[in-house]
Amino acid sequence: MDYEGFFADKLSDLRNEGCYRVFADLERHVGQFPAAKNFRDGESHDITIWCSNDYLGMGMHPVVLDAMSGAIRNNGAGAGGTRNISGTHHYHVLLEQELCSWHNKDAALLFTSGYVANMTTLMTLGARIPDLVIFSDSENHNSMIEGIRHSRAHREVFRHNDLDHLEELLAKYPKEHPKLIAFESVYSMDGDIAPIAEICDLAEKYNAMTYLDEVHAVGMYGEGGSGVAERDGVRERLTLIQATLGKAVGVVGGYIVGSHNLVDFIRSFGAGFIFTTSLPPAVAAGALESIRYLREHNELRQRHAERADTLKRRLREVGIPPMPSVSHIVPVLVGDEVQCKQASDLLLRKHNIYVQPIVYPTVGRGLARLRLTATPLHTDEHMDHLISSLVDVWKEIGIGAQDAAAA
Amino acid sequence: MDYEGFFADKLSDLRNEGCYRVFADLERHVGQFPAAKNFRDGESHDITIWCSNDYLGMGMHPVVLDAMSGAIRNNGAGAGGTRNISGTHHYHVLLEQELCSWHNKDAALLFTSGYVANMTTLMTLGARIPDLVIFSDSENHNSMIEGIRHSRAHREVFRHNDLDHLEELLAKYPKEHPKLIAFESVYSMDGDIAPIAEICDLAEKYNAMTYLDEVHAVGMYGEGGSGVAERDGVRERLTLIQATLGKAVGVVGGYIVGSHNLVDFIRSFGAGFIFTTSLPPAVAAGALESIRYLREHNELRQRHAERADTLKRRLREVGIPPMPSVSHIVPVLVGDEVQCKQASDLLLRKHNIYVQPIVYPTVGRGLARLRLTATPLHTDEHMDHLISSLVDVWKEIGIGAQDAAAA
Ligand SMILES: Cc1ncc(COP(=O)(O)O)c(C=O)c1O
Ligand SMILES: Cc1ncc(COP(=O)(O)O)c(C=O)c1O
Repeated sequence: MDYEGFFADKLSDLRNEGCYRVFADLERHVGQFPAAKNFRDGESHDITIWCSNDYLGMGMHPVVLDAMSGAIRNNGAGAGGTRNISGTHHYHVLLEQELCSWHNKDAALLFTSGYVANMTTLMTLGARIPDLVIFSDSENHNSMIEGIRHSRAHREVFRHNDLDHLEELLAKYPKEHPKLIAFESVYSMDGDIAPIAEICDLAEKYNAMTYLDEVHAVGMYGEGGSGVAERDGVRERLTLIQATLGKAVGVVGGYIVGSHNLVDFIRSFGAGFIFTTSLPPAVAAGALESIRYLREHNELRQRHAERADTLKRRLREVGIPPMPSVSHIVPVLVGDEVQCKQASDLLLRKHNIYVQPIVYPTVGRGLARLRLTATPLHTDEHMDHLISSLVDVWKEIGIGAQDAAAA
Repeated sequence: MDYEGFFADKLSDLRNEGCYRVFADLERHVGQFPAAKNFRDGESHDITIWCSNDYLGMGMHPVVLDAMSGAIRNNGAGAGGTRNISGTHHYHVLLEQELCSWHNKDAALLFTSGYVANMTTLMTLGARIPDLVIFSDSENHNSMIEGIRHSRAHREVFRHNDLDHLEELLAKYPKEHPKLIAFESVYSMDGDIAPIAEICDLAEKYNAMTYLDEVHAVGMYGEGGSGVAERDGVRERLTLIQATLGKAVGVVGGYIVGSHNLVDFIRSFGAGFIFTTSLPPAVAAGALESIRYLREHNELRQRHAERADTLKRRLREVGIPPMPSVSHIVPVLVGDEVQCKQASDLLLRKHNIYVQPIVYPTVGRGLARLRLTATPLHTDEHMDHLISSLVDVWKEIGIGAQDAAAA
């Protein structure tokens, strides 16, 4: 076999489909975000970032930066080992305690990322609980899907947020049969939110465990900011909550919270937890201070919600309606991959606005979109500039022109 | 099903087998390593760490700490997105360039960890290359095994470092049949090293790709420190080299290096690369400076090799022979899990020496051991104290007493 030829062919297929990814080379500067530098064609350009998942700007916040710098100065760079072999540092212990108290759960476990948290936890439960059936929302994130597939547990996929379909599938199994319902709160590419309480009702009726991914919700919802489960008053009804430290918290890493035995089980058997170097102590220190701050500053969430609402309204006003999101995520559907990439390129090159095109496999084919995120640091002036640039680009490329002509 | 009861039972089985893990809660201090604090029983104790994988102490080195602090001050905490969506920072680009040049390869790709690098790369190759057969060393690390299993590719396991067995298995398939040989250079629990050149000979004879995990070798071997493949002069014969930034480099993260098309293929299709927040820019900045330093300071490797050799010699002198390691790793076999844990506890509580017991599943059952690592920062005085403490503990517990009586 000609290996090199095989790789080259697959890459050229991707290019032809408009799905070949080119990463924007960025440099953020403390105190200036959402302004940033973009290196391209051998030069540095001043741009505004409109697609960051540092939703609240905590990745630039002095309390986080001071905590991290302090820990580096005092405790060094890396952890130097896996959690078991010299890699448990006091900041890991403190952060796990903080996560318990934040989510009002008994125990917490850190992973190197939200991806690894999902993959490892679902893999471990699915592989080790005999006959477990996992009921998985059809829009679940890749990290959950891979964990479930890798576990080889039997899987039932229910239509996205469809309670009737979920119940139909649950009812196929005797009450005694082990079950787990895996779903997200905020779905990050559409911005819709799961009916958590109703899913918990079904879980209780059919004796299923519940597994909720709050990756796009921690820091963002609820009076104390621990997520949609807090906002909806249903935290104690969930068996397990999973989330990230890399989005609203502003750093990197992932975790689960749940009962002592469940978390200890994953700690003891989860390969993706056991066999890897733990997070640097400074990362844990930064996340710890970020969470402490987020718990106390609900006004940051209010400001953030206002920014997202304003952006949605302003898009509607100029005839570029966002998808029907009920969260802080503001996706604008383009559809065609090539056109979406064109729009993104024009925004960057002509208007110095950076919004990455979202294409397959992150969303389905033909569902390409620009996914906008307005942080509390995006001002009205930033928004004026974004809106006028989008109008210009939409006109230049003719996005939606056919629909409009047809209407 | 009673889920809580199930988890509790499995944990109690682990306890009965002596395989339940208790993590040591540590605090390292810059300038003092290998001395550290250990929090236990509500108090802080001064201890010496003898099992860190920060092999060269780079996790405490001022060039690394300054680079990280500087990047945090200038560029913030987290990356704020996946590599594709606003999460490629200039330090990632610079670090990938440095990795190429270090390993003398065309392209490099960063992952959040060495674990994710192995899992994702092997999973992607195994799942996407039709009919690929993966030839896997029987002692390969869990992250490689999981990647291969998850890919569902056909797997042939060859006896550890056994060239005859590998050839026997390769010869079962026509030359045209796609093949990949996956193995490590330094095996981290025994300290032996693979015959890389001979494996490359077989790969060329049977037209197989080669995949080498240099996790425990980067920074440590070769004049420029890029690993055993450099030391043995065989870098260009390997299709792909994988390693970590979390051990000798002293920070966290993982990577692969290889040809442009191969690396671009993993970049484009590797789920564990695509769907996760990228490493903080400061982590990349720290790893970059660490590697630059390591390339220039072969004397650090010489000092390190001397320390490991001295430790092995001194252990033999007191009748506690290490396993036959040809690397910097110094494992002392105990065998029984409960006795191994006892030895570790006594070392910690009586002698203030921290060496985590290594038990199943990191090594096989009945193969429990103390795995010692001597960094360049461990002095002769540290070694005197370790040796006399080990002698005392061995006597107190009676490890090896039966063997000695039998001899
Ligand atoms: C829903 C969801 N879960 C999990 C993850 C993975 O989290 P992390 O970025 O911390 O790996 C992501 C995205 O990155 C996500 O969107
Ligand atoms: C051989 C080997 N490969 C890969 C890994 C994973 O690397 P990382 O710690 O960066 O996840 C490890 C240990 O941690 C290892 O021992």
